[in-house]
Amino acid sequence: MPMPQTVTSEPGKLKILEDFSISIPEGASKKVFDCANRFLRRLDGRTGLFFIQGVISEIHPQRPAFPTLQVNVTRKANLDFQENEAYSISLKPDKILLEAETDLGIIHGFETLLQLLSNDESGYYFPIVEIKDTPRFAWRGLMIDVASHFMPVNIIKRNIDAMAMVKMNVLHLSLCNDNGWRVESKLFPKLHLLASEDQYYSQAQIKEIVQYASDRGIRVVPEINLPSKSTAIQVAYPEFGLTASQANGLSRIAGNHHTMLNVGNEKTFEFLEKLLPEISALFPDKYFHIGGDNIDFKLIVNDGKNSDFLKKNSVFSAEGLQVYFINRINKSFKKTNKKLIAWDNMFHENLDKQTIFQVKTKKETTYDMAISGYQNLLSFGYELDLMLPAQTHYTNDPLPPLEIHTDKDKKKLLTPAQENNIIGGEALMWTDFVSANSFDSRVWPSTAAIAERLWSVGTVVDISDMYKRLEKVNIQLQECGLNHISNQNAVLQQLSGQHDITPLKVLIGTLEPYKNSLQLQRGSLYKTYSPLSLFTDAAIVDAYDARKFRTHIISYLHTRSTPDKIEIDKYLRLWRDNHNEIIRIASSVPTLRHLLKTSENLSTLATVGLDALKHTETKINAPKAWYDAHLLTINTIKKYQFANMSNALSQNDARCELVIIDDIITLLDLANQELAKKRIYDEEHSKK
Amino acid sequence: MPMPQTVTSEPGKLKILEDFSISIPEGASKKVFDCANRFLRRLDGRTGLFFIQGVISEIHPQRPAFPTLQVNVTRKANLDFQENEAYSISLKPDKILLEAETDLGIIHGFETLLQLLSNDESGYYFPIVEIKDTPRFAWRGLMIDVASHFMPVNIIKRNIDAMAMVKMNVLHLSLCNDNGWRVESKLFPKLHLLASEDQYYSQAQIKEIVQYASDRGIRVVPEINLPSKSTAIQVAYPEFGLTASQANGLSRIAGNHHTMLNVGNEKTFEFLEKLLPEISALFPDKYFHIGGDNIDFKLIVNDGKNSDFLKKNSVFSAEGLQVYFINRINKSFKKTNKKLIAWDNMFHENLDKQTIFQVKTKKETTYDMAISGYQNLLSFGYELDLMLPAQTHYTNDPLPPLEIHTDKDKKKLLTPAQENNIIGGEALMWTDFVSANSFDSRVWPSTAAIAERLWSVGTVVDISDMYKRLEKVNIQLQECGLNHISNQNAVLQQLSGQHDITPLKVLIGTLEPYKNSLQLQRGSLYKTYSPLSLFTDAAIVDAYDARKFRTHIISYLHTRSTPDKIEIDKYLRLWRDNHNEIIRIASSVPTLRHLLKTSENLSTLATVGLDALKHTETKINAPKAWYDAHLLTINTIKKYQFANMSNALSQNDARCELVIIDDIITLLDLANQELAKKRIYDEEHSKK
Repeated sequence: MPMPQTVTSEPGKLKILEDFSISIPEGASKKVFDCANRFLRRLDGRTGLFFIQGVISEIHPQRPAFPTLQVNVTRKANLDFQENEAYSISLKPDKILLEAETDLGIIHGFETLLQLLSNDESGYYFPIVEIKDTPRFAWRGLMIDVASHFMPVNIIKRNIDAMAMVKMNVLHLSLCNDNGWRVESKLFPKLHLLASEDQYYSQAQIKEIVQYASDRGIRVVPEINLPSKSTAIQVAYPEFGLTASQANGLSRIAGNHHTMLNVGNEKTFEFLEKLLPEISALFPDKYFHIGGDNIDFKLIVNDGKNSDFLKKNSVFSAEGLQVYFINRINKSFKKTNKKLIAWDNMFHENLDKQTIFQVKTKKETTYDMAISGYQNLLSFGYELDLMLPAQTHYTNDPLPPLEIHTDKDKKKLLTPAQENNIIGGEALMWTDFVSANSFDSRVWPSTAAIAERLWSVGTVVDISDMYKRLEKVNIQLQECGLNHISNQNAVLQQLSGQHDITPLKVLIGTLEPYKNSLQLQRGSLYKTYSPLSLFTDAAIVDAYDARKFRTHIISYLHTRSTPDKIEIDKYLRLWRDNHNEIIRIASSVPTLRHLLKTSENLSTLATVGLDALKHTETKINAPKAWYDAHLLTINTIKKYQFANMSNALSQNDARCELVIIDDIITLLDLANQELAKKRIYDEEHSKK
Repeated sequence: MPMPQTVTSEPGKLKILEDFSISIPEGASKKVFDCANRFLRRLDGRTGLFFIQGVISEIHPQRPAFPTLQVNVTRKANLDFQENEAYSISLKPDKILLEAETDLGIIHGFETLLQLLSNDESGYYFPIVEIKDTPRFAWRGLMIDVASHFMPVNIIKRNIDAMAMVKMNVLHLSLCNDNGWRVESKLFPKLHLLASEDQYYSQAQIKEIVQYASDRGIRVVPEINLPSKSTAIQVAYPEFGLTASQANGLSRIAGNHHTMLNVGNEKTFEFLEKLLPEISALFPDKYFHIGGDNIDFKLIVNDGKNSDFLKKNSVFSAEGLQVYFINRINKSFKKTNKKLIAWDNMFHENLDKQTIFQVKTKKETTYDMAISGYQNLLSFGYELDLMLPAQTHYTNDPLPPLEIHTDKDKKKLLTPAQENNIIGGEALMWTDFVSANSFDSRVWPSTAAIAERLWSVGTVVDISDMYKRLEKVNIQLQECGLNHISNQNAVLQQLSGQHDITPLKVLIGTLEPYKNSLQLQRGSLYKTYSPLSLFTDAAIVDAYDARKFRTHIISYLHTRSTPDKIEIDKYLRLWRDNHNEIIRIASSVPTLRHLLKTSENLSTLATVGLDALKHTETKINAPKAWYDAHLLTINTIKKYQFANMSNALSQNDARCELVIIDDIITLLDLANQELAKKRIYDEEHSKK
């Protein structure tokens, strides 16, 4: 994962033994050697083998006469947009050939090899395959908002490793907003001294991150959001703000604060024309992101004190100022050979055609921009903070293949050249309600599904196959030091003290955090300093038990097979009986008391489910009164849940959603022949 | 933990609600504000409360009229050896007073408060207490060997947080040895460029670590081991080595390599007299550790090419050269007002009395040095890499109180002034067989027991009480982001792929890593690049289930109580039946196959134990033949285990020790009236 472009399998295997060795040709870049060493360390970690070949380097290349793995590489890549990332693997029973034009291709190839690792009763091996692989889209990114909640260097580094595992190639760091400014400025030190609360990257740390990413074939694109979301800048330099807000300090809440730098003033431009080159010089990438989120140029145009400046520069409207602003900033970047990228809010037909736009307001914008001749990348539908299942992101294709496209007319309008303007996508991780501890669990493994969407051909769309592979990748991702799995136990243990956390694990296996805008409503309760290590922060999307349960329900719906029935029965009994355990723990742990109602609801649902399951064994339809009574029970729970979701200010619930409700209704329907038939029909229909 | 010097409790509590607030007086240092914010974040994380008071800082101190917690502090500390660290807490039903002369005391006081946090069915609260607290020893350290295996900045940082939680105040970084050089040198860049494999701290990172530690009241003492263990230095600058070994590169194995810098040569001193000031300038601490481990000055004195230099400086023996060397280095440090610390191998009666020695060869050395007028600190008995139970370290007192001292005569020889020469202790974490991933689990929670030994009065020695408190601290330590608990699951999951790891957890709950020198024997198998993420690396000392089991066995021995019997029976059945599950997993996972014999042994022991348990119910002695047969079975397993331990080259076993064997023998004895009586006698006798 991501699935390579072409894979040709043959029977047979290459066994991995202690004498496994690598040969890297003279002239290969340091990146290749470093990556080979990391490959060896991960391979021995997984196989437990003590390889004879040790650390290889340009000084000690250790080229054996008959290496197991021969690397061939032609040149060092320029880590730029649209650089060649292709590679090929030829895996024969006695030798592996990993070839690529650039070291970027080699880095990807090593990851593919690690995913090919297999084992059977006789040991570890690579299967015999021929792989030719190259990405579908050139821009495959992850945006990390380090402003709302700061993410320390080590969090960024382990996420870079994880990105490399799934062949992503752009890390987009959003470095400031109303909650804080996160990068050291030597020219304007008040920015990090007054507007970060010591939560910022020093320039040395930025270089460290950039180098770390570059070693793994990943570009780093910085974002300074302009001219809006400017509270942090105004806390440091109120003179450049439209409304001075220094006295109030940094904003403590999420959402749009309608703050703007006053870009209707020459002094503000002078400030930016010094600041931006300083920041952009820290990042070797050719692209610089100037944001444009939440802009409202009217505020500036309508401000009387700007009239001289606006007149002098022939700006007569908000739109005019938007164009003036971006063109002027663009001009200063051109001096250092840099190009701009901005959110689609900033788009205008009169801008430099070299500017890339990042689409987050609606999907169709990508087509419109492509037709207008602007390169753009898709982020709409990849918002990780909305806590949607991985499949939601997975089915969101920037350029759906004709055969599965649902909006064919629009698609047909694009010429091949226009299609080329859609250059990829970026997952978005806004961190309004995410701390350094919960971060990994909000990004992974979902982002791997997005990575596959952006790398693999558009016809790789089998959702259940994706989830099967995602489960494997999910475990492997721990190799990077991610805590996306372990954080759940840690939080639950921290909350419950000395208690055994098993009942909490059972409960959380059926719960997911609130989704979509409900997540955003937390804003009215949460401050930036509010705790993000509570039960809801331990819950994850695609909750494991709930997903397993659903698989069995769907299978049982079609087959009425006994193994499925046994598993369903096991889950339902577990959930029914778990409530007593939760009561016991919550009686002495106050933080867990708000879980009681949800736990009781789970128990009730399970009881209904067990009764329904018993009925499905008979050929006789369940009585209508029975059905109605149970449905009423379920609907009461549904209503309770909905009421809680809408009451975002309440702390008095689990702040999580029971995701098995519909599956219990399915079970109920199964107790009735007609309803069951309709279910099967609906379910099969929805697949098409 | 560590237990304060005096605690006076009263009934009642101070309830913690959303309006909990802190007031910090004007003039308090930034450290106090930062610590208060961390305190609030940890308090809300544990209680789930959304405090109304947000971030407090010198700019926004937010001093409420009636704060819940009033901090009083007189002055900013100098973060030096023997600075005042005392604090007091007065906890009344409506107000907390936290007072200290220095901000160091305040930092400790906040940690004590967090440990006082309690809860009952009505919510969270602090109990009503008066605490006066000050450390028993002024030097309470943790030595981290970052040379054998490099530990990245984030690992160091989270361990600094953990140290602060248990009130330790010295982080000793051992920065070079035969395996590598770990700090950037601008004067001698070949050191980090050629002898670190990119595994080193930049000077900016060192400053980052020092600042982070200082913010938490922790000094950082760097160590450059001289003049031995010099392979890394010689890889970079062979001209200063006694034996050139550059061609072979860094050493890949643990142990003493008998490499020495040629300190019988003026040029080497000139090199050191430039290098050491550069490194020591990065660390503001007044002490610099020059090592002295594995020294062998004979090698230098016997080398003919040094005779001119030796003669010129009137050096006629190895001992003479040792004194010359350390005195000369000391002189250069005196210029910058720094003092030396060295391992006890380097001790000599003719050295500067201001030098501190760190005792690691034998305990008695501390007394000898104290009598000779040298300050010293104890590390013998605090070697975490030997994988001994926490209680072993806990009972190792640098200066045992008379009433519990076992070597009273020696102790009586020390005058109070001499006693003052014993200034504390340091836990030692040599990382020959420890990776960044397994590091935390090798240090914690054992180090908390050492921290208590060094802070609390010497009469706090109740082992079972210590373990009870350690269990609580163990969970709280996760707050620092330590992976000491979560790494076990991660490793087991990584090894077993998609399999449920429960059977592996059951097995590992009875196993501990090889102890003492057996651990060191791994050196003959392990290279520095060998995998450290295998089953044995997931095993921990004080294995939880084994320890619980032993508690029940001892209790059952005395009381024959039914609850104990039920727990014993439950464990034994679990262990007996677990083997089938292990067989099932290992059949498809080759890395787990070497666990089979150990798992079978556990199952056999459990079967014997169950049979014995049944017999303990009757008043009739078990037949001798029955007893002998079972004992033979157990002894066979013991022998197998011992044989495996001695065969350090074998990869073909779990590389872990079943620690329940003796408990099963106890059960066996319980089936016989006389043996049982003898057991009780022995067990009670051993307590005295």
